[in-house]
Amino acid sequence: MGSDAVVLLSGGLDSSTVLAYANSEGRRCHALSFSYGQRHSVELEAAKKVATALGAYRHLVADIDLRIFGHSALTADIAVPHFGAGEEPPEGIPVTYVPARNTIFLSYALALAETIGAQEIFLGVNALDYSGYPDCRPAYIEAFEQMANLATKAAVEAGQRVSIRAPLISMTKAEIISLGLRLGVDYSLTHSCYDPSPKGTPCGTCDSCRLRARGFAALGLEDPALVRR
Amino acid sequence: MGSDAVVLLSGGLDSSTVLAYANSEGRRCHALSFSYGQRHSVELEAAKKVATALGAYRHLVADIDLRIFGHSALTADIAVPHFGAGEEPPEGIPVTYVPARNTIFLSYALALAETIGAQEIFLGVNALDYSGYPDCRPAYIEAFEQMANLATKAAVEAGQRVSIRAPLISMTKAEIISLGLRLGVDYSLTHSCYDPSPKGTPCGTCDSCRLRARGFAALGLEDPALVRR
Repeated sequence: MGSDAVVLLSGGLDSSTVLAYANSEGRRCHALSFSYGQRHSVELEAAKKVATALGAYRHLVADIDLRIFGHSALTADIAVPHFGAGEEPPEGIPVTYVPARNTIFLSYALALAETIGAQEIFLGVNALDYSGYPDCRPAYIEAFEQMANLATKAAVEAGQRVSIRAPLISMTKAEIISLGLRLGVDYSLTHSCYDPSPKGTPCGTCDSCRLRARGFAALGLEDPALVRR
Repeated sequence: MGSDAVVLLSGGLDSSTVLAYANSEGRRCHALSFSYGQRHSVELEAAKKVATALGAYRHLVADIDLRIFGHSALTADIAVPHFGAGEEPPEGIPVTYVPARNTIFLSYALALAETIGAQEIFLGVNALDYSGYPDCRPAYIEAFEQMANLATKAAVEAGQRVSIRAPLISMTKAEIISLGLRLGVDYSLTHSCYDPSPKGTPCGTCDSCRLRARGFAALGLEDPALVRR
């Protein structure tokens, strides 16, 4: 039996690849998803399918409420931007940014890790082909790890340090997909779209859909989530 | 109008004093409490009374579920230890420790601070007369602040740094109470007990009740929460 690890799993392309990666390194993966007032429950359904397909040891869903903070296109009543073929998103951090989201998610992961005695937390952040969120950068991840190792009884009393593992952080989207395909990820099960139809079909024109599509295109492939439409 | 600040408010002695302190510094205080599967709702009721009595600008309660992590006398089915007159708690971090609790609470406070444009988060941790929790120490607070300033759009894009203010961190319980009394805190409204009666009466014999009682005794006073019993 491998050592236990917590894997943050949104059900999107990146986090699904990370789950496959942690599995391939022999970890016993406790996948952790969040129900946080997302506009679309299709994300959680995708997480559940991916956790099962990749053989996660178990899949936990923590019910939290970020809506009391409002202020993001992913949780509040703000329109998700869409982009045509030649268009580029504006400079800066986009409206789909959720205040302190990764910090809250990692804090829960830290609580779970301590509870089960896991010394690794995996997450799928990526600082290259990403939407420009501050809490996806290496400096942030390192600072979180440092704080985490001062925060817990496990670290302070038993010397059980926790590592925040972000194996995709400097990979291109194409490299991530290529890795996932080698590890057997079925990307048709994953969901990344910020603005799906009521039936859960990806829009194809939000920033997240476009980043995926370009990654597949760079490998001469079509995004199976879009093909499925 | 003072600048906005988030104040973590449990309704206990320390956080109530911190709210009075932030108020006295002219902050417009957004008090933030958590409903996290505590054994006793009396804590939240105390927080509400204290927020009103001290004139907080508003009082938010975030509903989160730490019970999925189990593993603490404050959230799970583990007995809270009680101590007789001559008895001392055992060495080490006690069973009342909740995994990563302050990290989760501060993460929410960070999200709220960013949403409202606050650059200060006040909390009542104390590293002297405390129960030995790792996430109450100065090194932890500093590490959280460092991480927070890499985490948010406000800090990264607009240069709005956030300060984690822990004004009680090196004070004795008696000094905290003395400060609070000067600032007009009505300690009969506060609640610190880990194991109150079904009616909300403090037990008087848990670690938290004993720390309070000693603080009042050092000032030649009785704890009004215990007198009220």
